[in-house]
Amino acid sequence: MKGIDERPLNDILLPDYLKSRQALINEWLFRLIPDEKAFPPTIHKSMRYSLIAGGKRLRPILSIASSEAIGGDLETVLPFACAIEMIHTYSLIHDDLPAMDNDDLRRGRPTCHKVFGEGIAILTGDALLTHAFSILSRPELGGDVDPSTRLKVINELAFASGTEGMIGGQVLDLEAQNMSLDIEDLSTIHRLKTGALIRASVIIGALIGGAKEKEMNALSAFGQYLGLAFQITDDILDLESPQEISGKTQNSDITNNKATYPAILGIKASKKKAKEAADKAVAAIEPFNHQAEALRRIAYYTICRDR
Amino acid sequence: MKGIDERPLNDILLPDYLKSRQALINEWLFRLIPDEKAFPPTIHKSMRYSLIAGGKRLRPILSIASSEAIGGDLETVLPFACAIEMIHTYSLIHDDLPAMDNDDLRRGRPTCHKVFGEGIAILTGDALLTHAFSILSRPELGGDVDPSTRLKVINELAFASGTEGMIGGQVLDLEAQNMSLDIEDLSTIHRLKTGALIRASVIIGALIGGAKEKEMNALSAFGQYLGLAFQITDDILDLESPQEISGKTQNSDITNNKATYPAILGIKASKKKAKEAADKAVAAIEPFNHQAEALRRIAYYTICRDR
Repeated sequence: MKGIDERPLNDILLPDYLKSRQALINEWLFRLIPDEKAFPPTIHKSMRYSLIAGGKRLRPILSIASSEAIGGDLETVLPFACAIEMIHTYSLIHDDLPAMDNDDLRRGRPTCHKVFGEGIAILTGDALLTHAFSILSRPELGGDVDPSTRLKVINELAFASGTEGMIGGQVLDLEAQNMSLDIEDLSTIHRLKTGALIRASVIIGALIGGAKEKEMNALSAFGQYLGLAFQITDDILDLESPQEISGKTQNSDITNNKATYPAILGIKASKKKAKEAADKAVAAIEPFNHQAEALRRIAYYTICRDR
Repeated sequence: MKGIDERPLNDILLPDYLKSRQALINEWLFRLIPDEKAFPPTIHKSMRYSLIAGGKRLRPILSIASSEAIGGDLETVLPFACAIEMIHTYSLIHDDLPAMDNDDLRRGRPTCHKVFGEGIAILTGDALLTHAFSILSRPELGGDVDPSTRLKVINELAFASGTEGMIGGQVLDLEAQNMSLDIEDLSTIHRLKTGALIRASVIIGALIGGAKEKEMNALSAFGQYLGLAFQITDDILDLESPQEISGKTQNSDITNNKATYPAILGIKASKKKAKEAADKAVAAIEPFNHQAEALRRIAYYTICRDR
């Protein structure tokens, strides 16, 4: 992987660590998606358009950092990490559709259906979801990860993105528009809609890295708290961050009459709650050595980011 | 499996064979989908609504018959067969959406988006697709099929339903509306949109049944010709079969300005082409013994059915 800084976090700063992992993920994502000229070209163009937009690559970076935290190999975890980013991207494409959140902007660019039309956008989401499972089941990818572990990864990802995870959260979110929610309802929606896949990203990294039971429990708890910290911060950013930084329509939650943490708890209490969740995440992996430093710093980065 | 006739085809008539396998598939489909009361209920209700509508269950029956043709166990193949039916059902839900074919009727009942709204219909398709991969990766399902074979099944299904298969066909179909196609374009669309999943159903049954290389090649060829026979017949039925029998809006292809076999070749030549494809399918499995009798009769049933 020429020209990419592969040093672990201990030797470099977090922004450099994130930048180097993002570069690796971007390189692999494009290697794993059929070329734009592959038949039929429209769908491969739209898959690439949606993936290229970038974003933080938080989920695949979490898989990588989780695997690294227990001494896992960087190149082995990359295709699995990319499959998770494909699932995340598919969920954004479908979420942005007129029948769902009806968003025109995503990651600073027109959404998939704005560019390719609704029909192709629906199929692009379907294609990224399907392609993720194709990648997870290819023996030539992911080094010597044994078939049983691969099946565990597939099952974990299908569960986290299914009706008891991400899709379930989307359903609740759709049904909650224009309804008044209490903090418990809101937590449930977020735990399913966003938290489940973030937690699964950490768990999948742990599976690929060969985590023992105790390590797995600790990393799973880390992932759960991190998901919460992430979502509260997302709600705050929707209010506070101008469009040119967040890449999303500002106040879109308010426009869509969505319940958010700041709306229910206020900004100050929301920020405090996010900080507490990040603290708990870091506490869960307290016994880990310096290899888990990236995870620890990502936990605090999650609540300090500006987009 | 109480009360269900599990005798192989040789001892019973094809309609009884199909009926008994459909009953088994329906029983298993509902065992494999979370209960209607499971949280969040809306999505499990809509998944069940779309699956219960019935249909011929051709794809899962093909998996079962393909496995039986080489001596495979009936109960082992059932969860894999059901996963294929879930993928087929998801594709119908998304295909029926206003942004795609905009169909109000499917299998004689209002389509998913007509009952649950577009947002939930999109998520229901996503959920069935995701759930299929969840089922394929569960070690407690599918008897003692080894992890490597499971991964092959997942890869085969992801490929057949991806951009080089079913989704690719949907894209071409969407782009072909209001365009004039020649017979070669039409064959490509059908081979991808319908043929790939039908062929994969046969191949997956063969994988689960433990096919040797020669058997796999023969069954793969059978699946390919059968897919063609099926699709030509579907086009003919869209023209000839009244709505109360087909369960679909009659002449929907004409309304949508779609190219079809009868439109390009005429009815008579289309029927001849379907018959030739069925003959070739049967010829491909000529060396198989009496256990392949179900596959042979299904090939001819495919071109004689009325819906």
